[in-house]
Amino acid sequence: MSNILRQHIEEFAPLTDEEFALVLSHFTSKKFKKHQIIIREGEYVHNDYYLISGLMKVCHVDAEGKEHIIQFGMEHCWITDPQAYHNQTTATLQVDCLEDCDTLFITLQNREKLCRELQKMEHFFRKKTTDQYIQMQRRILCLISCSVKDQYEHLITNYPSLFQRVPKSLIASFLGVSRETLSRLASA
Amino acid sequence: MSNILRQHIEEFAPLTDEEFALVLSHFTSKKFKKHQIIIREGEYVHNDYYLISGLMKVCHVDAEGKEHIIQFGMEHCWITDPQAYHNQTTATLQVDCLEDCDTLFITLQNREKLCRELQKMEHFFRKKTTDQYIQMQRRILCLISCSVKDQYEHLITNYPSLFQRVPKSLIASFLGVSRETLSRLASA
Repeated sequence: MSNILRQHIEEFAPLTDEEFALVLSHFTSKKFKKHQIIIREGEYVHNDYYLISGLMKVCHVDAEGKEHIIQFGMEHCWITDPQAYHNQTTATLQVDCLEDCDTLFITLQNREKLCRELQKMEHFFRKKTTDQYIQMQRRILCLISCSVKDQYEHLITNYPSLFQRVPKSLIASFLGVSRETLSRLASA
Repeated sequence: MSNILRQHIEEFAPLTDEEFALVLSHFTSKKFKKHQIIIREGEYVHNDYYLISGLMKVCHVDAEGKEHIIQFGMEHCWITDPQAYHNQTTATLQVDCLEDCDTLFITLQNREKLCRELQKMEHFFRKKTTDQYIQMQRRILCLISCSVKDQYEHLITNYPSLFQRVPKSLIASFLGVSRETLSRLASA
């Protein structure tokens, strides 16, 4: 399990065995059951979760109780409420498990300590955050300029397994359309 | 002018005079005129611009020629097409100047070199990118769950000077509404 994290980090920063042992000592392993909520709106967010296996969804629940899905998180994703985690404020997002999940999490304090102690990890987190920033910007671009059909096709091309793993109602919620519209898109 | 950059970096990473001289040697100063296009869709993106003064807009022009504004960039913003800049691909965004602009820019090569040579700068860019990531996620949250009225009020509260500096038609485009809808919001 820790090998998966090592490979992931080494995409940006090759580590010696000693360095990886230091890295790993800053993480904690935790398993979650399907349907378990790991971040709740209004609570403080202590951890950033690296997903070893399983599937999570990140959403915002509005004043009317309507759920808006921001992101699905699969294997190799980092999942948290970034604003609450990095600024040590309370969550505006909710994260829950759509499958049983295996994670390795890191607290903000341990992340900052690790980055100070090992520049390779400062480098890794800089590169990883840059990737996340780019992904968010692409999602904005899609939201403001793509048709729902284009968004649907983008999703099916880039995350084909999502359609086997996630109920259609959640895909519809992610795209901001009704279940009926989604069926029309799927059969088009 | 370079003092503005120094203060900006020192919010995250205090530097000695020697260190700042090293940092500054990796940047180039460049001025742009109002209406000048600094990043064009389809072209390679070599620079990330730190805006000393002036105002830029980042937008995507769709297949029908319709402009979708992703972001306004003011003093102390970093402006580029992040995907094109970091992945060395061609731009999908356009950036142009809404006022005369003074910038200090850094190439990707110089950015990576500087981060290797000075961990404080790796730290600075990690923290800065984290902030940008959080901002993008807040924008997504707004796009998928806020009413246009809420988005308008968020904009006027957080960027009051924007309304003096940017034509109403661009504010309407940023919010994805017509000029008439914007007038109704402004008088509500």
